[in-house]
Amino acid sequence: MKMRQRITNKYTQSGLALLGSAALITLVPTAAMAQDAAAAKMATAADVTEIKYVLNTLLFLIGGFLVMWMAAGFAMLEAGMVRSKNVSMQCTKNIALYAIAGLMFWVVGYNVMYEGVDPNGFFGSFSPKSIPDPAKDTGSYSAASDWFFQMVFCATTASIVSGTVAERVKIWPFLIFVAVLTGIIYPITGSWKWGAGWLQTAGFQDFAGSTLVHSVGGWCALTGAIIIGARYGKFGPNGEVRAIPGSNMTLVTLGTFILWLGWFGFNGGSQLAMGSIADVSSVSRIFMNTNLAAAAGVMAAMFLNQMLYGKVDLTFALNGALAGLVAITAEPLTPSPIEAIMIGAVGGLIVVFFVPLIDNLKIDDVVGAIPVHLISGVFGTMVVPLTNPAANFVTQAMGVGAIAVFSIVASTIVWLLLKYTIGLRPTQEEEMMGLDKAEIGLEAYPEFQK
Amino acid sequence: MKMRQRITNKYTQSGLALLGSAALITLVPTAAMAQDAAAAKMATAADVTEIKYVLNTLLFLIGGFLVMWMAAGFAMLEAGMVRSKNVSMQCTKNIALYAIAGLMFWVVGYNVMYEGVDPNGFFGSFSPKSIPDPAKDTGSYSAASDWFFQMVFCATTASIVSGTVAERVKIWPFLIFVAVLTGIIYPITGSWKWGAGWLQTAGFQDFAGSTLVHSVGGWCALTGAIIIGARYGKFGPNGEVRAIPGSNMTLVTLGTFILWLGWFGFNGGSQLAMGSIADVSSVSRIFMNTNLAAAAGVMAAMFLNQMLYGKVDLTFALNGALAGLVAITAEPLTPSPIEAIMIGAVGGLIVVFFVPLIDNLKIDDVVGAIPVHLISGVFGTMVVPLTNPAANFVTQAMGVGAIAVFSIVASTIVWLLLKYTIGLRPTQEEEMMGLDKAEIGLEAYPEFQK
Amino acid sequence: MKMRQRITNKYTQSGLALLGSAALITLVPTAAMAQDAAAAKMATAADVTEIKYVLNTLLFLIGGFLVMWMAAGFAMLEAGMVRSKNVSMQCTKNIALYAIAGLMFWVVGYNVMYEGVDPNGFFGSFSPKSIPDPAKDTGSYSAASDWFFQMVFCATTASIVSGTVAERVKIWPFLIFVAVLTGIIYPITGSWKWGAGWLQTAGFQDFAGSTLVHSVGGWCALTGAIIIGARYGKFGPNGEVRAIPGSNMTLVTLGTFILWLGWFGFNGGSQLAMGSIADVSSVSRIFMNTNLAAAAGVMAAMFLNQMLYGKVDLTFALNGALAGLVAITAEPLTPSPIEAIMIGAVGGLIVVFFVPLIDNLKIDDVVGAIPVHLISGVFGTMVVPLTNPAANFVTQAMGVGAIAVFSIVASTIVWLLLKYTIGLRPTQEEEMMGLDKAEIGLEAYPEFQK
Repeated sequence: MKMRQRITNKYTQSGLALLGSAALITLVPTAAMAQDAAAAKMATAADVTEIKYVLNTLLFLIGGFLVMWMAAGFAMLEAGMVRSKNVSMQCTKNIALYAIAGLMFWVVGYNVMYEGVDPNGFFGSFSPKSIPDPAKDTGSYSAASDWFFQMVFCATTASIVSGTVAERVKIWPFLIFVAVLTGIIYPITGSWKWGAGWLQTAGFQDFAGSTLVHSVGGWCALTGAIIIGARYGKFGPNGEVRAIPGSNMTLVTLGTFILWLGWFGFNGGSQLAMGSIADVSSVSRIFMNTNLAAAAGVMAAMFLNQMLYGKVDLTFALNGALAGLVAITAEPLTPSPIEAIMIGAVGGLIVVFFVPLIDNLKIDDVVGAIPVHLISGVFGTMVVPLTNPAANFVTQAMGVGAIAVFSIVASTIVWLLLKYTIGLRPTQEEEMMGLDKAEIGLEAYPEFQK
Repeated sequence: MKMRQRITNKYTQSGLALLGSAALITLVPTAAMAQDAAAAKMATAADVTEIKYVLNTLLFLIGGFLVMWMAAGFAMLEAGMVRSKNVSMQCTKNIALYAIAGLMFWVVGYNVMYEGVDPNGFFGSFSPKSIPDPAKDTGSYSAASDWFFQMVFCATTASIVSGTVAERVKIWPFLIFVAVLTGIIYPITGSWKWGAGWLQTAGFQDFAGSTLVHSVGGWCALTGAIIIGARYGKFGPNGEVRAIPGSNMTLVTLGTFILWLGWFGFNGGSQLAMGSIADVSSVSRIFMNTNLAAAAGVMAAMFLNQMLYGKVDLTFALNGALAGLVAITAEPLTPSPIEAIMIGAVGGLIVVFFVPLIDNLKIDDVVGAIPVHLISGVFGTMVVPLTNPAANFVTQAMGVGAIAVFSIVASTIVWLLLKYTIGLRPTQEEEMMGLDKAEIGLEAYPEFQK
Repeated sequence: MKMRQRITNKYTQSGLALLGSAALITLVPTAAMAQDAAAAKMATAADVTEIKYVLNTLLFLIGGFLVMWMAAGFAMLEAGMVRSKNVSMQCTKNIALYAIAGLMFWVVGYNVMYEGVDPNGFFGSFSPKSIPDPAKDTGSYSAASDWFFQMVFCATTASIVSGTVAERVKIWPFLIFVAVLTGIIYPITGSWKWGAGWLQTAGFQDFAGSTLVHSVGGWCALTGAIIIGARYGKFGPNGEVRAIPGSNMTLVTLGTFILWLGWFGFNGGSQLAMGSIADVSSVSRIFMNTNLAAAAGVMAAMFLNQMLYGKVDLTFALNGALAGLVAITAEPLTPSPIEAIMIGAVGGLIVVFFVPLIDNLKIDDVVGAIPVHLISGVFGTMVVPLTNPAANFVTQAMGVGAIAVFSIVASTIVWLLLKYTIGLRPTQEEEMMGLDKAEIGLEAYPEFQK
């Protein structure tokens, strides 16, 4: 009784707020029908439309909060992979990048990506415009739920960058890069496909973002790692590679489990609808394929690791899961389960082969994001035609290449601008001391640190 | 085939258990209608009612488990903010307070808050009564889902207290306080608004509990901090404030991310229904505004922190997120996105200004809960009239003030009763040794502690 | 506009993929009906069927991702309960066992458990067969969502084993055991009840798996602990029990909260449907009872611990929660709230009584999984007849006993085969050094470890 009263208030309130949009699609029974007693007890097609709207919106909300949770996963993974003297910094960067992505994708990103993109176009609107637009609460889902879901993908892209360039970039320059990435770079390439721009017109396929999210993040991470340079001590005077162990493997493990969980929202939510048997069955199949690919990534990485090195490095197993997840993300629906397993397994193998290779190229990738997100993302995108007849290799290669060129050029410009203006790196003394003391003023583990 | 058989069993089982309530609302087609072949293939209005019941209940369940997860967030945040010698104690308190809240809100709390509250009344029924009442599985949602959703809010209130008074209160007195808080204090003030008592009648607005949850927890924390006193060593002999660094910043970060995630359930679930376009669109807008406010809280706290101190203290960034979340909680629906950003940003500024101020008042608030939950909660409640025409400043102030007076008086009585009977504080030796050894008998990090 | 285009693509894609199954059950209005203008605006019974299909599937997906998250909970709990020299190993085992369960349950497990089990039968099909079978996307839910939900239960069983035998088993033998457990042992006993085999026919009741999941894991853990033997140093030369403190209590606390959260999916999802008022109300009641039982488990364990030992050991409080959860799992629906509290409380008492008892039996159970999952699981199964008239003590005992015998015999055979072929234990030197260095090549906390 009490609660109902509370609900009544809320109904009224929301009814007022949403009246315009709701009125657009709610077909109420006509007066003639209402007079028909039998019909009055029947459900209308508008009822079904409304319920499907609820279900589609719910998919965005659930998928969205699961992907939001991935921001915590990246934070934990990265905090565990850096040395303890840089852990507070890494945590600060991660909470801030998620905040900035959320703000920038509202200020400008969403409209650049989705508003008024020409079918042959390269970006949408840079002019501020009402988000969420109540006029879009029509048809299939709530505009705000769509914004939320797309925003967390944008944030994921930024998370990928922060891991690679950890331990040697100052906080504010990094956060300025994040603002440009989440407000402009990611939305522009995103508009080409998901905004229905030229790559969508060309037939490029990328279901949940192996290329649009993971490779964009990966390219920006790669240019950053090169322009910023390696951590002091990572490569010896004769060029030898030195291992710099991460400080906390349970955090890396926790982060990976969080990412695995969040990925069900990432891939499953990208079905974009669940109001029908076909859609929810697709979401289910995506859950299954996503899990199979990740599992195969773990085991493939572990087997190869054991064969090559006689040990089972935990970070390879964890990155194997992530690489399997990235690989299946370009197309988690059309593969059969065995195909999903094979795609994920290749992701796991990529990790074991490419982590040392990146090292040998003298690129300092603290968390292994380049093999996991970039190389596995490109691989996943390129094998879409094997399972989805709507894709072809030429268009896939064109999409991967075009997004690579734009991401590399744009991110290089931004990194270099930052480098030659406010500067990217702390001083050598600050880096040696650790960024927690230098910039954050707070140690992560004050009672334990050496 | 097998699974269907399993489902059939469950259907039967649940059908038996819920027969009474289900029968109350399921309008089956009449015999005459059934004879009509066409009508037999049509859906009834009762079908739609049933599906909306499912969707509303589902919102309570999803919102509920997200808010339940906040208990883990508080546990991690607090475990990271205390010194390692008190970490097992803080974990014990947090698992126990969530358990106690769950029990007390069933034994007495729910009925005090929701059962038979007079429109001019100050509390409901103290007599034990069947919860969930199957007779209430009617209309809009399941009674048990409502209980679950309301219970986790009650637990949140207790979590707020435990952080502030950490490191210097004995476990059992603290848990007795929690039992009174979750069984009586919180339900009484809750009944005034959400139980449809006198504040609801007066027009007080508090959508998801900036005042009902966060300020009540904050007031109880404040009286506790004053009555228990500061930790030994927090304030020097000449009254100088001494920083006592928390032992584990990754836990604080993890806890904050957990709370941010859970807050989508906290605010979104407080729409209390999602069976219609209007409701689910409101939930979506709440998700968006909640995220924008938290993001703005982070960035405002970071900017101000950088300007004032030349560093970016991680704990300020994290508490900025939480303060932004608390501020938007009083009204997450009616603000436009830019208003949500401004409300959250003020929350972030509150943290940076009030954390040192509380210190200077010689109040020892271990986690910063008083600025985050109390001050930001009051702020959020007072600005509701700016965006929601159903609210006015006088009534908001009256609600904030009345709940303040009751919470302060009631909690003071309980704290003092405990202090002068079984005692609140451990001995100075025990406090120096750490509560883990003194009361728990188990160190949190036995291999690492100094 | 753009988003709609993206959705259109997805609709088409999924429409193609699922056309067969969808066509089987979508009853479109007949032509004659379509000609009727009024009827064209009405909803059909097929619409309702479709929406219920969506809702049932959604329960599997939400329940499934919550239970998947429990794998992270076990990983954290176990990583915190072992010494720091074995933490990377424990994390590796946990990510790998979840991966292996996901693969094995697809390769063979699911069909053994659910495909063609005779009503008097003891297992299903060992021949590989299409999973998910699109022909089963009919009626009530998506086949892939069902597979996903059942798979995570299988993985839980393996997680239980890994905790007990931690710190002294080599990784690959352990993972081979997991493969057999998740591919064969668990599916066989599972088929007896949930696969609709002989125990289902006999009337055995086990709603969410106190016996099928938790006791099976517990028996395999027990045989493993006995066959592998205790850790060096656990029992002194005169048989005295030595405490070996876990290295990180915040991880144990986090793991427990994760498990508690996941259990809402474990028990709630086991309703297997939520498309009706009866079903979703049952799910809600299950949430409530599950939470009450866990809360009672915490408090019962704490009270008894305080009375017996004068302290409140955190691990007893946490294991009390888990034991309460395990106890209610056999029947979380039919108990009244007070019954749920009592059942959970007994679980908590079991922990306090049986943890020392297991020690005194010279069985080295690192995390307390045998009291929590095995003894509390058997207890929960045996008290089902007290609240569910469909159960009786004889059949419950028969089920518990039969599954015990099979689990003990099968797991003993596998453990012994491994012991006498590739060997189960590392050398004493390796065990002393820690498995992280010996087998993983990576320390968990390289900057902190002694």
